[in-house]
Amino acid sequence: MPQHPIRLFIANYVSIADSDWQEIEVAFERFETDKGAIILQEGKICRYLYFLESGLLRFYLTKDGKDVTKFFTDAPYMFTSQVSFSSQTPAKETIQAIEKSVVWQISLTQANQLLRFPVWSEFIRKLIQEVQYYTEEILSEMQTETAETRYEIMLKNKPDWLQRIPLKYLASYLGIAMPSLSRIRKKFQSQSGS
Amino acid sequence: MPQHPIRLFIANYVSIADSDWQEIEVAFERFETDKGAIILQEGKICRYLYFLESGLLRFYLTKDGKDVTKFFTDAPYMFTSQVSFSSQTPAKETIQAIEKSVVWQISLTQANQLLRFPVWSEFIRKLIQEVQYYTEEILSEMQTETAETRYEIMLKNKPDWLQRIPLKYLASYLGIAMPSLSRIRKKFQSQSGS
Repeated sequence: MPQHPIRLFIANYVSIADSDWQEIEVAFERFETDKGAIILQEGKICRYLYFLESGLLRFYLTKDGKDVTKFFTDAPYMFTSQVSFSSQTPAKETIQAIEKSVVWQISLTQANQLLRFPVWSEFIRKLIQEVQYYTEEILSEMQTETAETRYEIMLKNKPDWLQRIPLKYLASYLGIAMPSLSRIRKKFQSQSGS
Repeated sequence: MPQHPIRLFIANYVSIADSDWQEIEVAFERFETDKGAIILQEGKICRYLYFLESGLLRFYLTKDGKDVTKFFTDAPYMFTSQVSFSSQTPAKETIQAIEKSVVWQISLTQANQLLRFPVWSEFIRKLIQEVQYYTEEILSEMQTETAETRYEIMLKNKPDWLQRIPLKYLASYLGIAMPSLSRIRKKFQSQSGS
């Protein structure tokens, strides 16, 4: 029998016994979303910690009526709106599925109950540490690189994202207007064709 | 007897018994740094998790020979170069004391040994969660606000930083040149004087 996708994911961080896994498994509920579906709306309280089994998400803020893309989350990965979830306060961000996605959710109460298992507690610590690392990487990139270089880094590290992410979201993530993104794309297309 | 500054700091996150504290206390070593001292140099392996008892730190990257300020850390707070520390690989950033500081350090081996105490493990999880939140806040601010608004936010939330941080570091944190920072400063000085 193939292993559960959540178990496979957790096993990247900690070794997990069958008895621990049984406690974790029963706490998660599965659902599917359409492309474009809003999983969490800015201003609402985030009630769940989620696992993205398949699909692609966009986290965005609203500023002067326009949305600004913070980052993307690709499957398989855990996600939530952290402050909203842990303090049960309104979220400052919206989480949108930009592909048809398969998602699992666990409530705050259940997630906190699982913390009594050392393996879950260790997994969560390592996961948050990794998320912190990724966030710092995006911050450093924004502070030191041009939009063009950031496009080039994505082309190198996540080439499939450039196919999967709609251009308007990519432009808002890079902090540039659509015509500037078109110029950058043409430049790299002509380079790869030469 | 006044409480130890590290114990007071940890107590903001978890309730800590005397027996736990004794294990933690013996693992930390204290040192002092001069203003301008480098605590960790880019390219070196970060060997310690630190507690900043007093003083102010700057984290920076080097890009094309110029340094770019990532963020500042004010006492009391824990700090390290997270990826370098946890994976014992060369650090991508430099940590500099921009004031005379009092610092405590604990080695990776000792920090890992303390993880067997649930109270320390919970403290570390909550702390990393908070650091992740701060990093995301800086990222969101960079993505949605102008340098002028970011200056205004600092003026409101951390007015003492504008006195304590040298202007060249502030300009590099805001991603602007010194003349632009001067214009912004004059604007807010004339507003506060009117």
